Amino acid sequence: MSEILVVGSVAYDSIMTPSGHTEDTLGGSANYFATAASLYSPVNVVGVVGEDYRSQDLDLLRRRKVNLDGLSQVSGKTFRWRGRYEGDMNNAITLDTQLNVFANFSPELPKSYRATPYVFLANIDPELQLKVLDQIERPKLVGADTMDYWIDSKLETLKKLLSRIDILLINEGELRRLTGNWNTIAAVKQVTQMGPKAVVIKRGEYGFVMFCEGRFFILPAYPVDHVVDPTGAGDTFAGGVFGFLAKTKEGISYANLRQACVHGCLMASFTVQDFGLRALEKVSWSDVELRQAEYLKVISYAT
Amino acid sequence: MSEILVVGSVAYDSIMTPSGHTEDTLGGSANYFATAASLYSPVNVVGVVGEDYRSQDLDLLRRRKVNLDGLSQVSGKTFRWRGRYEGDMNNAITLDTQLNVFANFSPELPKSYRATPYVFLANIDPELQLKVLDQIERPKLVGADTMDYWIDSKLETLKKLLSRIDILLINEGELRRLTGNWNTIAAVKQVTQMGPKAVVIKRGEYGFVMFCEGRFFILPAYPVDHVVDPTGAGDTFAGGVFGFLAKTKEGISYANLRQACVHGCLMASFTVQDFGLRALEKVSWSDVELRQAEYLKVISYAT
Repeated sequence: MSEILVVGSVAYDSIMTPSGHTEDTLGGSANYFATAASLYSPVNVVGVVGEDYRSQDLDLLRRRKVNLDGLSQVSGKTFRWRGRYEGDMNNAITLDTQLNVFANFSPELPKSYRATPYVFLANIDPELQLKVLDQIERPKLVGADTMDYWIDSKLETLKKLLSRIDILLINEGELRRLTGNWNTIAAVKQVTQMGPKAVVIKRGEYGFVMFCEGRFFILPAYPVDHVVDPTGAGDTFAGGVFGFLAKTKEGISYANLRQACVHGCLMASFTVQDFGLRALEKVSWSDVELRQAEYLKVISYAT
Repeated sequence: MSEILVVGSVAYDSIMTPSGHTEDTLGGSANYFATAASLYSPVNVVGVVGEDYRSQDLDLLRRRKVNLDGLSQVSGKTFRWRGRYEGDMNNAITLDTQLNVFANFSPELPKSYRATPYVFLANIDPELQLKVLDQIERPKLVGADTMDYWIDSKLETLKKLLSRIDILLINEGELRRLTGNWNTIAAVKQVTQMGPKAVVIKRGEYGFVMFCEGRFFILPAYPVDHVVDPTGAGDTFAGGVFGFLAKTKEGISYANLRQACVHGCLMASFTVQDFGLRALEKVSWSDVELRQAEYLKVISYAT
């Protein structure tokens, strides 16, 4: 039985960056998350694709023993996103979003999914996040992501969700929108008043801020000297976090999350090195160990 | 004899931030640097002030045993800067700059300064930075800062300077301007081709990137939950770096700079907690030790 469940988007992305461009490449939060997390522990995916979804695009997750019983294929086209990055690539410029089959997505979990202990609700409508959560029997650890759009349009539903999750993983812009506070450190403390036991703020090339048990843990990203495409880095980060926690069968604690966030960083550093999932899908466990050793050198103060 | 020499601006700043505003508060790179560095080791200051410089504004540095023989007072008004910060306060918006006596500044070092081993050339015209450097007899370690204005207007002089210094301390925007490269990690490597043995990129709330002996050391800033005024944080950081190196009488090495940069972070974290020098001037050595212990907890991965 899989230890981890993710619900999120499964998409075809068209992306332009200073390094080049790609059309209809495999993407979506569920794909990034599952590709990363499945390196650590088996994953159940909940999502929807259209008739145009290429069967070979399922092979990546199948090779990783990801359970796709909860990925439904319906008539219509797969969700599509078109975006561009410039300069420091810290912000995506959305050129086009076609929800397609995602517009009527209403997640129904297969029975075999309902006892999954580690649950990650990627950035989708908080009503759907709640709907998924309602179908899980006593989850051990629940995490969620969200975005400005839901903070603005469904704040009350989002707050209900926040009161039911253990860990919120969002970026700095979303943190500001949620709290109205420009200071990341102060805003993180505010968010824990809304329910989550732990908060992880994803900062792109600047790494992350983790807060749990009243203590901060803050580190930069692994130094990548050629970032090709930052798409999916945040979902990959979450995949590393949940993968590590599920593999070690741990709950939320400062000590566990500290290690989990380092794995989030390592996973994200692979994703940004090529378009879409191209770099991440090739990563082996020995690559992770090697990169971890390099990363620890870069951030270790001990003489 | 003082171990450290700094040449830079001595100024009155008028600053608006989301926390409030202040008029004609003591500032300038030499003041920030010297206030921080003098906590570690005695400092010689080279600079210029006008007739309007308040005598009590010299008391701060005098209390710290800073040598002011190289601070000349001439007819005219002291350098003034007026600026504003908004939102995340990561960028200053300059509203007004009055060079005043700084316009004709031509640094002449007192004889007693000429054997100072640790030399920091804060952000001034690279011609003046070279002029100061030419007056030092065999310095042990030379560092410099610069800004976009000099990168654009005096690149050849700046390059001459870079070939003669050991360590360059600039921010990410300046790094991009100097190299034309948006990737901080790649750009840092480029800069070491221009001469400096070590490069430190100051990233504000995101900390720093240090590169020396072919290796990176990267850490976030100390988490401050109420940033009042970021003015001078970068010069304070440099003061902590040079203060630490001079105190330990060390040269440039990866191991030394790693510790020095942590002290830079600690010093900068005090500066941003109040307007101008108000917070930094009250800092004692025990405050530094306490904050260091807190900082190491926030960035330490060891379980």
